Amino acid sequence: MEQRISLITLGVADVRRARTFYERLGWHGQEVEETVFFQVGGMALVLWGRDKLAADSGVEDTAPGAAALALNLRSRAEVDAALAEAAAAGAELTQPARETFYGGYAGHFRDPDGHVWEIAWNPGFTLNPDGSLTLPDFGAS
Amino acid sequence: MEQRISLITLGVADVRRARTFYERLGWHGQEVEETVFFQVGGMALVLWGRDKLAADSGVEDTAPGAAALALNLRSRAEVDAALAEAAAAGAELTQPARETFYGGYAGHFRDPDGHVWEIAWNPGFTLNPDGSLTLPDFGAS
Repeated sequence: MEQRISLITLGVADVRRARTFYERLGWHGQEVEETVFFQVGGMALVLWGRDKLAADSGVEDTAPGAAALALNLRSRAEVDAALAEAAAAGAELTQPARETFYGGYAGHFRDPDGHVWEIAWNPGFTLNPDGSLTLPDFGAS
Repeated sequence: MEQRISLITLGVADVRRARTFYERLGWHGQEVEETVFFQVGGMALVLWGRDKLAADSGVEDTAPGAAALALNLRSRAEVDAALAEAAAAGAELTQPARETFYGGYAGHFRDPDGHVWEIAWNPGFTLNPDGSLTLPDFGAS
């Protein structure tokens, strides 16, 4: 599995409140379907409802502070291979790879300490040759 | 506060077990004082004992899956300014800025959803001109 992180998603109780907080810090994000994306270096920080994050990841909504890491890959086959590698390494698969609501393909696992990872192919997010992620212009503010 | 993330620290119950998991995925890290650092793009993923992470951050050790984000800056004055900005934006300061065990200067806050941030100046970690972080060679395996 490539040694990269594409996105960090912070589960939040109220997307508007969370976005306001980060924008008061001087950050600039784009909001699409109640999901806020901030470009941070070669990856993205995402604010998303905790309930949606938990359901998507196949885990119970636990404590405040819930978050998930994502590794974006270049094809469905790469997603399948990475999930198999994680399972062989001892990960707990919490969601099998499947078509996603955003037109991609993704599965989820938890590492031995409960940290959630999404392994995804997202045709809307182009990966740069070095594997870094540059968010598209969603045409949203 | 600059729109960057320097490190993501995953709190773990057993550093050796956690490191073994990520190395089985093909990742390569360096371990220093029971802390494992992986270079991931322009930042670092860190594995550190959950109890130490909680104590360092000034938060109670909560659920498995606990993690913290860090923004590294270039001086003590920048740390003070960023923490003041976060407090003004509504963050809860959980640790005032102080000298750290690694010879730096850092403070911690929680965002409105309980996500923990460390704001740090670490003279051992050079920031690149674009703000990205390249881990030093610790001379460790």
